[in-house]
Amino acid sequence: MIAEIIAVGTELLLGATANTDAQYISRELAAMGIFVYHHAVVGDNEQRLAGAVELAKTRADIIITTGGLGPTYDDMTKGAVAACFGLRLEPHRPSLDRIREYFSKLGRVCTPNNEQQAWLPEGCVVFDNSCGTAPGCAFESGGKHVIMLPGPPKELTAMLKTGALPYLAGLSDDVLVSRFVRFFGIGESAIENELREMMESAVNPTVAPYATDGEAYLRVTARAGTRDEAFEMTRPVVDKLLSMFPQFIYGVDVDSLESAVSGRLRERGKTLALAESCTGGLIAKRLTDIEGASGIIWGGVVVYTNSAKTELLGVPEALLRDHGAVSGPAAAAMAEGILARSGADYGLSVTGWCGGGQVPCRAMTEFQTSAGDAYIALAVKGGETSVKKVFVGHGRERGRTLAAGHALKLLLDELKSKNYA
Amino acid sequence: MIAEIIAVGTELLLGATANTDAQYISRELAAMGIFVYHHAVVGDNEQRLAGAVELAKTRADIIITTGGLGPTYDDMTKGAVAACFGLRLEPHRPSLDRIREYFSKLGRVCTPNNEQQAWLPEGCVVFDNSCGTAPGCAFESGGKHVIMLPGPPKELTAMLKTGALPYLAGLSDDVLVSRFVRFFGIGESAIENELREMMESAVNPTVAPYATDGEAYLRVTARAGTRDEAFEMTRPVVDKLLSMFPQFIYGVDVDSLESAVSGRLRERGKTLALAESCTGGLIAKRLTDIEGASGIIWGGVVVYTNSAKTELLGVPEALLRDHGAVSGPAAAAMAEGILARSGADYGLSVTGWCGGGQVPCRAMTEFQTSAGDAYIALAVKGGETSVKKVFVGHGRERGRTLAAGHALKLLLDELKSKNYA
Repeated sequence: MIAEIIAVGTELLLGATANTDAQYISRELAAMGIFVYHHAVVGDNEQRLAGAVELAKTRADIIITTGGLGPTYDDMTKGAVAACFGLRLEPHRPSLDRIREYFSKLGRVCTPNNEQQAWLPEGCVVFDNSCGTAPGCAFESGGKHVIMLPGPPKELTAMLKTGALPYLAGLSDDVLVSRFVRFFGIGESAIENELREMMESAVNPTVAPYATDGEAYLRVTARAGTRDEAFEMTRPVVDKLLSMFPQFIYGVDVDSLESAVSGRLRERGKTLALAESCTGGLIAKRLTDIEGASGIIWGGVVVYTNSAKTELLGVPEALLRDHGAVSGPAAAAMAEGILARSGADYGLSVTGWCGGGQVPCRAMTEFQTSAGDAYIALAVKGGETSVKKVFVGHGRERGRTLAAGHALKLLLDELKSKNYA
Repeated sequence: MIAEIIAVGTELLLGATANTDAQYISRELAAMGIFVYHHAVVGDNEQRLAGAVELAKTRADIIITTGGLGPTYDDMTKGAVAACFGLRLEPHRPSLDRIREYFSKLGRVCTPNNEQQAWLPEGCVVFDNSCGTAPGCAFESGGKHVIMLPGPPKELTAMLKTGALPYLAGLSDDVLVSRFVRFFGIGESAIENELREMMESAVNPTVAPYATDGEAYLRVTARAGTRDEAFEMTRPVVDKLLSMFPQFIYGVDVDSLESAVSGRLRERGKTLALAESCTGGLIAKRLTDIEGASGIIWGGVVVYTNSAKTELLGVPEALLRDHGAVSGPAAAAMAEGILARSGADYGLSVTGWCGGGQVPCRAMTEFQTSAGDAYIALAVKGGETSVKKVFVGHGRERGRTLAAGHALKLLLDELKSKNYA
């Protein structure tokens, strides 16, 4: 089956927002084995939306629209799309009641504009909007499946998960299971090179690579009659990947390095304290992005200057003078300093030269030689301190992300390696 | 003039990346007064790309493609687009020499695939690629202007700025100047409500609102015969905005709150130390994102636990017990603690309840009542400590961003208010 995604919204054409809705939907459709050959974006304009729908009818089996379901005058997706299929809009009682109740709870008047959100194409399947007021819907007409979803990403992702994807899954008897294999320290293209044949020949399960924030992951998706069966089908693929990239895969079906670290710390009942120089609080920020961080993250210091390293961590001035602030001994002293001050189980430190600003374009070759190094140290309560030198010289933002990633990976490896009683 | 943007890349249709190129281009075109009515995305497929170009010819004066200019077999944009206009590709000598030189410098062989990047439509204007190997180009044919740009965002944004926008500007005798008016503490929609009439009636200068990461900004763009003239035309609009929103506008033509704060600190020769609880290092991270931070940011602590507040900052246990860790007295003690320990000129602290995870959908009304407060304190060397209570209760990520923003804004207001000798 072939799908086309039509986003409706003048704000997209003005560049106020990126079309992340289309990205998110495309990713889910790819995992389901549904092909997407076109994305289109039109403004809040009935005629141009109708044109896009008529065109999509000629080249897709499934047409998914995003946006234009809300209460304002420029929200006209439902009327325009229904008209393309000769359907009328009619009020959907439960949605109408829900919208009225919502306004009554807020003590506000529910205007006709707001009620209009509950008018949907006759005979459609209605998708409840758990994050907003405008419901979405799906219908089948003339052999085409049409799905209309709201534009705000939070509403869209929720409704996709609970409404649209189950609807699409219902078009087939199969069940899909996706596993996520997360990598650190190897790029998407290097993984692709290794796995090109596997990825191209894989039909069920499929294997697709993605990259985010200096990390890469593979999504392994199997289709079968039951969830258990599909899960079992992913197993040999995941096992093969684990055996091929043991040093790079940090987790399967985890969200991120920081959530893998948090999970292990919680499991072990251990606490962590941080001493960051070049990463400037990024590791603390990432770990405390996760709820319940206060049980495992004691806290940390951002010791950007030598004076802060000495004052907050007791790193001897002489050590900084003799070895430099970006050195293995400095990293070790920082990790041991925060371990001693905090009483936590682990002290993790980073010091480095995380790239000077943006990668200077044009001077690509020069840049490659002036790249920065970073030192990471992990001090373990009642144990040893290990130091690792890593290469992070690819521009400031990327360098910091890499340095933070290497530090989290070092701790994760330590947490995995020990047999805690 | 009407423009259409066609993005070429199977990775977009698989959802591996969002179409940020189209967003970036659209924003620039909007500022130039060029209308965009359609975005289209097609995969690396000659036939579908040709179809998109033929369609765009019927409804746009300017066709901009992104992606598919590289050296791999699936990069076929130039050939397909040139064919739509009956043009041949021919080698562009300077580009060919540059690509060969690049490979020779790297000590690698320049394959025919790589040389093919220098083949461009006959008679086109060539745009040098300062961040990669594939040049872009523009040509005029049959009354249509066609511009081809590379897909990688870093290459695209650089070439847009140095190549494509000047080319488009050259189609008119006018010069454009954009000013950016940055807001904190007021939402995009609240600004729009206040300014709807002004924005809708504004033709030259235009006024367009944007939102990013809990902040909003207005872009004021004027068109005139000279740069000075255009700049002068923006002045009354910017002045009017400054008089309408004195408490919300933190800067004009600055990049962000953190860069405004950094700039002022540098100007005054002052240093800052941070004590963060709920923001978990986010303020330190944002300030150290900016180059040269080590001259003005002494460092900071992430004191997530009470023990860290006491150990690292000397906040008395009794104070935490009596007032709680999320309280004005705790914030003040944190700011004063880091000021004393650092010897910096300012100590800035945040403690708060930055929202518990994602905004719980469906329970929208409940959420509004269980929202979190945060306390911000600023301790000034040889001066007073001020404490401010702010409301940040909109989910963890948003709450932390808001709390960090309020803290930066408090410091910025202090830096602006004083007449330093």
